[in-house]
Amino acid sequence: MEKIHVGLCGLGTVGTGVVKILQDHKEHIKHKLGCEIEITKVLVNNMEKKRDVVIKRDWLTSDPAELVDDEAIDVIIEVMGGIEDTNKLLERALENKKHIVTANKDLMAVHGQKLLRLAKKNNCDILYDASVAGGIPILRSLSDGLASDHIQKIMGIVNGTTNYMMTKMADEGLAYEEVLKEAQDLGFAEADPTADVDGLDAARKMTLLANLAFKMELHLEDVDVSGIRNITQEDISFADSLGYTIKLIGIASMNHGKAEVTVEPTLLPKDHPLALVKNEFNAVYVYGEAVGETMFYGPGAGSLPTATAVVSDLMEVVKNIRLGISGSAHIDPQFDRQLKEDKEKYSRHFIRLDVDDQAGAFQEITNIFSEHEVSFAKILQLPGDQEKTAEIVMVTHKISREQLLMSMAKLEGLGVVKRLISHYRVDGEE
Amino acid sequence: MEKIHVGLCGLGTVGTGVVKILQDHKEHIKHKLGCEIEITKVLVNNMEKKRDVVIKRDWLTSDPAELVDDEAIDVIIEVMGGIEDTNKLLERALENKKHIVTANKDLMAVHGQKLLRLAKKNNCDILYDASVAGGIPILRSLSDGLASDHIQKIMGIVNGTTNYMMTKMADEGLAYEEVLKEAQDLGFAEADPTADVDGLDAARKMTLLANLAFKMELHLEDVDVSGIRNITQEDISFADSLGYTIKLIGIASMNHGKAEVTVEPTLLPKDHPLALVKNEFNAVYVYGEAVGETMFYGPGAGSLPTATAVVSDLMEVVKNIRLGISGSAHIDPQFDRQLKEDKEKYSRHFIRLDVDDQAGAFQEITNIFSEHEVSFAKILQLPGDQEKTAEIVMVTHKISREQLLMSMAKLEGLGVVKRLISHYRVDGEE
Repeated sequence: MEKIHVGLCGLGTVGTGVVKILQDHKEHIKHKLGCEIEITKVLVNNMEKKRDVVIKRDWLTSDPAELVDDEAIDVIIEVMGGIEDTNKLLERALENKKHIVTANKDLMAVHGQKLLRLAKKNNCDILYDASVAGGIPILRSLSDGLASDHIQKIMGIVNGTTNYMMTKMADEGLAYEEVLKEAQDLGFAEADPTADVDGLDAARKMTLLANLAFKMELHLEDVDVSGIRNITQEDISFADSLGYTIKLIGIASMNHGKAEVTVEPTLLPKDHPLALVKNEFNAVYVYGEAVGETMFYGPGAGSLPTATAVVSDLMEVVKNIRLGISGSAHIDPQFDRQLKEDKEKYSRHFIRLDVDDQAGAFQEITNIFSEHEVSFAKILQLPGDQEKTAEIVMVTHKISREQLLMSMAKLEGLGVVKRLISHYRVDGEE
Repeated sequence: MEKIHVGLCGLGTVGTGVVKILQDHKEHIKHKLGCEIEITKVLVNNMEKKRDVVIKRDWLTSDPAELVDDEAIDVIIEVMGGIEDTNKLLERALENKKHIVTANKDLMAVHGQKLLRLAKKNNCDILYDASVAGGIPILRSLSDGLASDHIQKIMGIVNGTTNYMMTKMADEGLAYEEVLKEAQDLGFAEADPTADVDGLDAARKMTLLANLAFKMELHLEDVDVSGIRNITQEDISFADSLGYTIKLIGIASMNHGKAEVTVEPTLLPKDHPLALVKNEFNAVYVYGEAVGETMFYGPGAGSLPTATAVVSDLMEVVKNIRLGISGSAHIDPQFDRQLKEDKEKYSRHFIRLDVDDQAGAFQEITNIFSEHEVSFAKILQLPGDQEKTAEIVMVTHKISREQLLMSMAKLEGLGVVKRLISHYRVDGEE
């Protein structure tokens, strides 16, 4: 029976999970593929460290060349992380005609398109489903299952840490700092949580999703990102009283050949499928022209789900090798990169203002909005937190980003407006 | 450029949708496949009927032989429904080496395994993702995406009509007969709603899912089915006050090599992902050993989603033809059909009893349960609807079906028990 030889770069929790799955499911995998998979080299930093998995001593090496230059190795699994050095390593592997499975979204968001082209040139596969949403086979679903449909919009909860934090803030009334500390104590959030809480991690994943869904080469810099640092209990409770839940949502949309990709705190109607995705779970909601609304839900991270996704990709690579069709899966971007301008970015917005509670103040504010043709679906006025102030909470109808920014700028120059407290996108409803 | 010729059996709403998608997405499909797809024959009952789609007059025929015996046709799409005659037609198509895409769950639930074997023998593909949950690519996800994982349990809302009805009953407080009439008026439910409301349609789909997930040849007769006819507003409101939502849920589980497949009204915790699937939407929740919990959500029916799934399957078939790997996708059942016995079927149960409100009645009842080692997580006692009666509502801990049936039989013989009002499975929590 034919045997496929694999070089594994990285033996942290995911790498260990991959080794375990390949060992535990050996018979099952053989049955599915008609061939065996064997790991023959493992790249590690520390040769002496005790490992959680039964592994042959002579598999281990700390020299990358022993993997990427080894003629006997067919597939490289990259689960060690890092961007520039890792990119060089994978480029060399591709030049040596090795197929690649990676769980590295940081790398793919930056160098993905180049690596995909290099892979195609060398008739190699590079699969990265594990990099986007852990256990959810979303890339495969986008490229296969809905294959004949035009995808118009993707909305995703693609960062487990921030979703865990938003869930705790909403359900337990805790403040941002408290939930961050709790998430750090539990190991969900890093000591430096920037990449998660500022939305960068989600932006990387949305870039990968949008590229595939829209067949367009979009870059990380094309994503408008804002994170969850400034969300308060007041925001959550006003949203709640208006029928919304706040989540950190990535949105990629396509209209008339132009794309928009954002990651920002977004109000969703409470009965929207994404509003109900709790804790560290991820979900990706896809709107296709014909199929309508579909959603994929699952664990966004975790060593076993990610390792499972890596092994699924590995099996796909092996099938392709056996069928002699490696490298044929990747399709070059079909459309030129075109981004929406501000005047073409439409959505609803939730706006909170602190204003002087004086006769005519409300009038002055609504005048500015109506000058920019901004109309409202919901308005609340309440006493402010200081004497003689009032708070106004508004949800607009669909307006362009240009309309939003212009009216905001005007408002800030208005004497009666003491402060713009917060404003968030509202989505998931007509 | 190579061209694939397709014979389409049926030109109702789904068939019309398929023609439209193939026309509207012609360029997109060509780009994805590197070849064209052309429908060259369409089997219809009525040659004269006006059609909603631009179609060449000489495509139409009312003679099946013109499709299945035509050497130029590569793929047969079957969207006309029916079981025995359709089965004969598809058998003949397979013998003539034609690949098949079908949206016909009734047929696949009865003759699927035989057709799959015949297809394999003839190196043909038979794909049927459209038959299970319309727009959700669940079969492909089960066979590819989670490929390396052992699937332990599937829970599904796989019938849109009953889910629409259950949603209306829960949200609007309407009675079963009212929502049925409404669903019929809207065209969601048939004039004879038996297959939907009695769970048969869901049972067919669960059979297909379980076969694929567990790699075991299970039959429709292996499914324990009960429908939603007897669910009352009282059931819904007691469930609600205990923190549950009632849904018609299909459950397939596998323990120690033995399978259980059921379709029955089931209480789910309100924050379970399936509890929140509303209206005519479908969702399939999959529990895999490594990946943990994942869920696929989407439109369960509708002509466009189903047509989209048919076209996705068609594209897969065409890829396989071009790669020369047709028929290799199907894997014979790997495990012998083994079903759990009643003593191995574990779950929690919700039980409502009407009892005489007399001293010691409650004691007599709990004695019977404790004789069978049935213990309870929740018990409510309330005044009954007649004088000197009481109603007892209970949720058990996990017990076997044997324990349930034995204690129920004993209860029915008990003088103080006037009536077993209802009992339902409780699932989706530990």
